[in-house]
Amino acid sequence: MSGEGRGFPVTEYRARVARAQVAMADAGLDALLLTSEPDVRYFSGFLTRFWESPTRPWFLVVPAGGDPVAVIPSIGASLMAQTWIEDVRSWRSPDLEDDGVSLLAEALREVAGVNRRLGLPMGAESSLRMPLADFKRLEAALSPVTFVGDAGIMRALRIRKSPAEVEKIRKACEVADRAFARVGEIAGAGARLDDVARRFQMLCLEEGADWVPYLACPCGPGGYHDVISPADGHVFAPGDVLMLDTGLVHDGYFCDFDRNFAIGAPSQAVRAAHRKLLDAVDAAMDIARPGVTAADLFHAMDKIVTGGQGGSDTGRLGHGLGTQLTEWPSLIPQDRTRIATGMALTLEPGIEVEPGRILVHEENIVIGDHGAEFLSTRADPEILCLEARR
Amino acid sequence: MSGEGRGFPVTEYRARVARAQVAMADAGLDALLLTSEPDVRYFSGFLTRFWESPTRPWFLVVPAGGDPVAVIPSIGASLMAQTWIEDVRSWRSPDLEDDGVSLLAEALREVAGVNRRLGLPMGAESSLRMPLADFKRLEAALSPVTFVGDAGIMRALRIRKSPAEVEKIRKACEVADRAFARVGEIAGAGARLDDVARRFQMLCLEEGADWVPYLACPCGPGGYHDVISPADGHVFAPGDVLMLDTGLVHDGYFCDFDRNFAIGAPSQAVRAAHRKLLDAVDAAMDIARPGVTAADLFHAMDKIVTGGQGGSDTGRLGHGLGTQLTEWPSLIPQDRTRIATGMALTLEPGIEVEPGRILVHEENIVIGDHGAEFLSTRADPEILCLEARR
Repeated sequence: MSGEGRGFPVTEYRARVARAQVAMADAGLDALLLTSEPDVRYFSGFLTRFWESPTRPWFLVVPAGGDPVAVIPSIGASLMAQTWIEDVRSWRSPDLEDDGVSLLAEALREVAGVNRRLGLPMGAESSLRMPLADFKRLEAALSPVTFVGDAGIMRALRIRKSPAEVEKIRKACEVADRAFARVGEIAGAGARLDDVARRFQMLCLEEGADWVPYLACPCGPGGYHDVISPADGHVFAPGDVLMLDTGLVHDGYFCDFDRNFAIGAPSQAVRAAHRKLLDAVDAAMDIARPGVTAADLFHAMDKIVTGGQGGSDTGRLGHGLGTQLTEWPSLIPQDRTRIATGMALTLEPGIEVEPGRILVHEENIVIGDHGAEFLSTRADPEILCLEARR
Repeated sequence: MSGEGRGFPVTEYRARVARAQVAMADAGLDALLLTSEPDVRYFSGFLTRFWESPTRPWFLVVPAGGDPVAVIPSIGASLMAQTWIEDVRSWRSPDLEDDGVSLLAEALREVAGVNRRLGLPMGAESSLRMPLADFKRLEAALSPVTFVGDAGIMRALRIRKSPAEVEKIRKACEVADRAFARVGEIAGAGARLDDVARRFQMLCLEEGADWVPYLACPCGPGGYHDVISPADGHVFAPGDVLMLDTGLVHDGYFCDFDRNFAIGAPSQAVRAAHRKLLDAVDAAMDIARPGVTAADLFHAMDKIVTGGQGGSDTGRLGHGLGTQLTEWPSLIPQDRTRIATGMALTLEPGIEVEPGRILVHEENIVIGDHGAEFLSTRADPEILCLEARR
């Protein structure tokens, strides 16, 4: 959805390419090959929901110098032509014999020459969005040129958001804030979980979400089993705790935070657990600034929610976010990533209320030069209560 | 969303595994490694929106004999335990040192032995959903065991839907049918395209969609430029043609069809173009039955929309659908796939009204033993008209 405040000025994309090229020179890379939606969009601004169709591959080549080259299916040529990318090469996809491989090989040969090193994101949280057999064909076509990793360049660039990117995430958070404030309109004792899930997505849209790629809504008496189950026909009853966790999108950027709701009066254990989760968030906020590590944020929260036991099966207590619902870093003991200005993060502590019954709370923050700022409106430590529907 | 009519009985999954194992024996494969959401779900029934998070890899191993083995992050162990899969192995992901690779290698060694052949989907429309560097580590850990393609097994299985799968797609289509019937409530001269996009997604949800992963909504005077652009702030004016193309989900299965709407009175050219699109759909329906090819369906439509010129930049005139918005086959001249009972397809002819102005119409059908049946309610040849909003 373009128009008022949508997209970025071309200067933003040029600055991203310039930073990439400095890092490529350091790493001795002659080109970067990008195949995933967030990576292609990062440099081009190419925004479409059409990536939902897994049929066709899409490629962006970032040379060591000069502007990126898009090698894409003809169905996207008109939209790509509206971005700042001028060199757009397309083929009629799907092509069962050669689905862009020759065209891409030609573009890579042209920009990187022979006997060169081509960078490809292949590390943690990446994936190659093209058929593996086609990638092997591409490697054969380019031999002896070889693909190596991207030297962490895409991670290093994307992990720190520009002020303009932060504003997109902030707007997504504001939409979700408004939707969460209206949950009382759609949920209460006697409501069905799957109906609430639909109606919450409608609230997100009504409040301004472009779309709602993610919603989790676990619910159970005194807590829930896990945080990824789809909604079922469960009918709310007093004592239930409902969690709504949404990743909605504004102009291609995600929020990712949740709210917990007690159906009827919550038990003392649930109230105390919820307060503890907010204490954990506050503890992380107290230390969140450039220079601490992702692990430090983990330990600040873990100390409060488990007494320092080292986390839970959800595996982490927060993560990056941006053009994806989840991005690097991970708030886990092993992640020594230095927190830096511009990082957008979730703080997502979980707690076991009783065996097999958990609560998870999540906020979104951004790191500034001297501390952190909430992008979501920090929840009250007292768990929200939904009364019976009339 | 489980509950009434949700999911499939275990017999459905066992039958899928049995068919896979017959094909694996024919192809000399000792195990199949699956990494993508639709492939993992096909055999396990594991349904969650959590795949929206690209951080963690998920694996399912189908052995030559016996039941599948899930090798998954611990955050999903509770949900996977609710499926029929009994052998669930999990690790606390993300693990920066070893994100499931050792655990997966062990499972593959166990089920396939040494010096064996492991099948992996790597052909058209597939992708490997794990970091490429981790895949290389997995190959090294398993050497001399090698990964080969899956011999087309996943395509051959998934391309034909069971009656139970067809019912899921039918329900998704019914939801979209009802939403399309209500577009008059939200769109008309003076409405904004991005607002209509949001409100149409709300209608889809209100009519019963679980979620709305895909919506395209191109709009322009006398036709549109392309079919993948996101909504912008365009204000509808008489003479515009709006297309709404949705891929909404019911119980993990997609519909994928569109409707065109004239804002105010359409021109004769637009009316004629729309009629021709429906003629093309009817021509394909006339011949759609087991034994014809995907190319035959293409030519039946292309003859009408271009006089047999051979298609357009959108690249095809329809495709399969199911657990993905788009699946094999492609209705293009080169695709000689034999149409077979149980295939769910889109018929998606496009036409150029004038240079740079197109209309695309799309219906969903399923192939029966003796012909085809509409899953969407076939549109009227007369383009729908939306009046000015009051």
